[in-house]
Amino acid sequence: MNTLRLQARFYKLRTNKAFELFVISVIILSAMMIGVKTYELPVQVEGAIRVLDFAITLFFLCEISVRFIGENRKLKFFKSAWNVFDTAIVILSLVPIENSEMAMIGRLIRVFRVLRMVSIIPELRMLLNSLLKALPQLGYIGLLMFIIFYIYAAIGTTFFASINPELWDNISISMLTLFRVMTFEDWTDVMYETMAHYPLSWAYYLSFIFLTAFAFLNMIIGIVVNVLEDERQKIAALKAKKEASTQPSLSDLQAQLEEMKALLLKQQK
Amino acid sequence: MNTLRLQARFYKLRTNKAFELFVISVIILSAMMIGVKTYELPVQVEGAIRVLDFAITLFFLCEISVRFIGENRKLKFFKSAWNVFDTAIVILSLVPIENSEMAMIGRLIRVFRVLRMVSIIPELRMLLNSLLKALPQLGYIGLLMFIIFYIYAAIGTTFFASINPELWDNISISMLTLFRVMTFEDWTDVMYETMAHYPLSWAYYLSFIFLTAFAFLNMIIGIVVNVLEDERQKIAALKAKKEASTQPSLSDLQAQLEEMKALLLKQQK
Amino acid sequence: MNTLRLQARFYKLRTNKAFELFVISVIILSAMMIGVKTYELPVQVEGAIRVLDFAITLFFLCEISVRFIGENRKLKFFKSAWNVFDTAIVILSLVPIENSEMAMIGRLIRVFRVLRMVSIIPELRMLLNSLLKALPQLGYIGLLMFIIFYIYAAIGTTFFASINPELWDNISISMLTLFRVMTFEDWTDVMYETMAHYPLSWAYYLSFIFLTAFAFLNMIIGIVVNVLEDERQKIAALKAKKEASTQPSLSDLQAQLEEMKALLLKQQK
Amino acid sequence: MNTLRLQARFYKLRTNKAFELFVISVIILSAMMIGVKTYELPVQVEGAIRVLDFAITLFFLCEISVRFIGENRKLKFFKSAWNVFDTAIVILSLVPIENSEMAMIGRLIRVFRVLRMVSIIPELRMLLNSLLKALPQLGYIGLLMFIIFYIYAAIGTTFFASINPELWDNISISMLTLFRVMTFEDWTDVMYETMAHYPLSWAYYLSFIFLTAFAFLNMIIGIVVNVLEDERQKIAALKAKKEASTQPSLSDLQAQLEEMKALLLKQQK
Repeated sequence: MNTLRLQARFYKLRTNKAFELFVISVIILSAMMIGVKTYELPVQVEGAIRVLDFAITLFFLCEISVRFIGENRKLKFFKSAWNVFDTAIVILSLVPIENSEMAMIGRLIRVFRVLRMVSIIPELRMLLNSLLKALPQLGYIGLLMFIIFYIYAAIGTTFFASINPELWDNISISMLTLFRVMTFEDWTDVMYETMAHYPLSWAYYLSFIFLTAFAFLNMIIGIVVNVLEDERQKIAALKAKKEASTQPSLSDLQAQLEEMKALLLKQQK
Repeated sequence: MNTLRLQARFYKLRTNKAFELFVISVIILSAMMIGVKTYELPVQVEGAIRVLDFAITLFFLCEISVRFIGENRKLKFFKSAWNVFDTAIVILSLVPIENSEMAMIGRLIRVFRVLRMVSIIPELRMLLNSLLKALPQLGYIGLLMFIIFYIYAAIGTTFFASINPELWDNISISMLTLFRVMTFEDWTDVMYETMAHYPLSWAYYLSFIFLTAFAFLNMIIGIVVNVLEDERQKIAALKAKKEASTQPSLSDLQAQLEEMKALLLKQQK
Repeated sequence: MNTLRLQARFYKLRTNKAFELFVISVIILSAMMIGVKTYELPVQVEGAIRVLDFAITLFFLCEISVRFIGENRKLKFFKSAWNVFDTAIVILSLVPIENSEMAMIGRLIRVFRVLRMVSIIPELRMLLNSLLKALPQLGYIGLLMFIIFYIYAAIGTTFFASINPELWDNISISMLTLFRVMTFEDWTDVMYETMAHYPLSWAYYLSFIFLTAFAFLNMIIGIVVNVLEDERQKIAALKAKKEASTQPSLSDLQAQLEEMKALLLKQQK
Repeated sequence: MNTLRLQARFYKLRTNKAFELFVISVIILSAMMIGVKTYELPVQVEGAIRVLDFAITLFFLCEISVRFIGENRKLKFFKSAWNVFDTAIVILSLVPIENSEMAMIGRLIRVFRVLRMVSIIPELRMLLNSLLKALPQLGYIGLLMFIIFYIYAAIGTTFFASINPELWDNISISMLTLFRVMTFEDWTDVMYETMAHYPLSWAYYLSFIFLTAFAFLNMIIGIVVNVLEDERQKIAALKAKKEASTQPSLSDLQAQLEEMKALLLKQQK
């Protein structure tokens, strides 16, 4: 009985708007601390930060507990990827960090606390979800892009490895170099270097740039068309629903006309 | 009585097309003088410019006065942000500039006079308003972008600060460096430097580029969809209005059919 | 009588498909000669080219004459901007080029002969026309862009002229530098230099980049919306035309129903 | 009889899903081997790879044979460009590679085996086909772009060849330099160099950038409009089909009304 009352109270707390705002403030404070720590700081401030960091960790632990206890069905809690992410971040930041290697990881985990912002603001969560939903559409274009990169990287390594091993030594380095060429980052330096040995190698770079630019363009158009398609279907559905409820269809009118014609014919007999 | 007549006359003046064109010409002259002053000039020309500058300042003062006196309700005048901006610019440029520090500010204020062009040409004012109206839409995407930048900057500072303090010393410098990476400005130089210490750090840069490019793409698509949505609604509203006024609806026809059926049935009895 | 017959024959010639193709071939030949002349050539080839160039000039003169004589109304001929352009290019390339300064201009005029390709292929002419038609739309955005550039250039010159006169000496050089910043071309080098003196000058560059990127984005969206609007209107016009001709309107049906109701009512009396 | 049975069995095999997946796995293995070979390898691994490469070549030969024999009409097999490509790649990689020059070509052919991925996965094949279908649309814009490049390159060579022969020596090198300018790759270095001799040459670069950017923009808009047009036509066709089958048209209703009116009039007589 006691547990149920506690759960109800915690549920009320976690859906409280003021509580939400307070949690967001603590997350922002935690994010700012991460930023502050990257500056050279006097010893006292560092001490204060350590204390504050501990307090925030504790607060997050309490908050997650409140959320968990406030949840009706405990299993449902871990079905939400965001809850799992929140819990993992909070628990991992409990691990004491002393030796230097762990310290690095401890700091990194604290950095990911900023992502709790996304998990707590519904609009950001929706935005990220819609971003993730758009990803699979790009699957085949991504694969095609990878094949283009792979083939060009293999050709690049075959011919240019001896010219500049730093850029073309093996297929992975070549792919990185090609990514650089795709972003137009000093790509002429790369080209002029190989053109000194293979004067026609400009064709290699230009064809690569055209191919990737073209595939990229197609990807964007694909996304735009998809988005517009979605819009159109929503509008069409809305229209259909609206018309169905308020306006008779032409078929209805035709049925009525048939009925009247029958009446008229009956009259004539 | 005298004031009213003055107001009416001034109102007539400020809505006069020739007066508008003259004001625009003076603004252009003022803008050109700002440009001319950045060149090395002979002493006589500098003197002439100083006189001209004084004359322009006086003219602007008169013009604002005409606008203010010509206004019916004095309070309404300061409700327009553009009027406030114009008045502030004109009054501030009255402050005499003698010592060198003030001179800098005085010159800056004269630069902002060019913006009066926007305040006086209605098309530009509308354009800027529509630009500003589009800004809030970008709010959440902007926040998401900032979170991505912040997290990557924190990670960057943690790992790379010791490699190149000029680029990664603290979180704000790191964010500037990341902005540079996002614009593809010599981003490979930044990457190759950190890859010498952390050979896998290419993943850091590539994931960052993909994430920001993706968020950016989504932002653009979001704007386009919004714009198209607006367009569509305008068209739909126009269509609805047009149809409502000239064409009977299917419901009207159905009502008429019902009426006729009733007549027929009555006949048969 | 003789003139008329000549005109008719020339009109027939200039509308002949084979003649068109031959003219296009000569233009391509002329374009290729321009390209070939930029290479180091043996003396004999240069002589041959000079002869060929003379022949091409003569041919173009004949071709323009054919076009002019073949034209029905002589005044109409010069109303087409393309005809004027063609004639000017042909006449100007008749001027003998001997001394070195004129030679430069002579070569330039020969270069512009390549543009005759556009004047002779209708598809290219249409494409260019549609490009030019899209220009005025961009007018106000262009003006706004210019104002942004001008203000930032004035501020830049005021503060940074003493740091690097090569980039910020006067307002025109500053505008060129800002254009460079807008294209992200080594913009960080420009920024780091001024940040050494004004540590906050990054705000100047970032705000400029955001403003121009935003204005640019708006320009593109504006064009897209315009294009779609055009499309939509064309489709709507087509639809309206189609419906008007084949389908009765709801008003027609209503009129018929009214008529029938009148008949029924008359029957009942 | 025996041949027919063999063909039927092979047809069954080549349409088998498991067989498809196995072929894809072998292609991926072959692609990975190409990647692995670009790394420095111990001698034993190299031997193993040579054996594996031989096995893959054999397998591809068998697979193509199965496809060919499994085909009903042998001539139809070579009508598909992909089949021809597959066969060519497989047969060419049979050629023994011993001397160093041929080895290069042999390795290249093995690289193109990765493209078999595209030929075997239907979604990728469709994607590539749609990419290729979009190409001809770009024809005239491409020609216009080329003319712009050609004219600017001719002008560039005329004026700048003496300043920096590496960038402007002849028309082809100039075109490459202009492509570099179009990608904004260190374009200011190119410009500052020529501005030292011709202070007004910034106009050359800026006009070129504006022209190409504008043509490029138009190209993209052209593609988008085409894509949307296609979409719209598909939707319109779908709608027309749907309406035709389920809903009576207004003309149908009018016909019925006419019929009824005739009945009524007949009654009144």
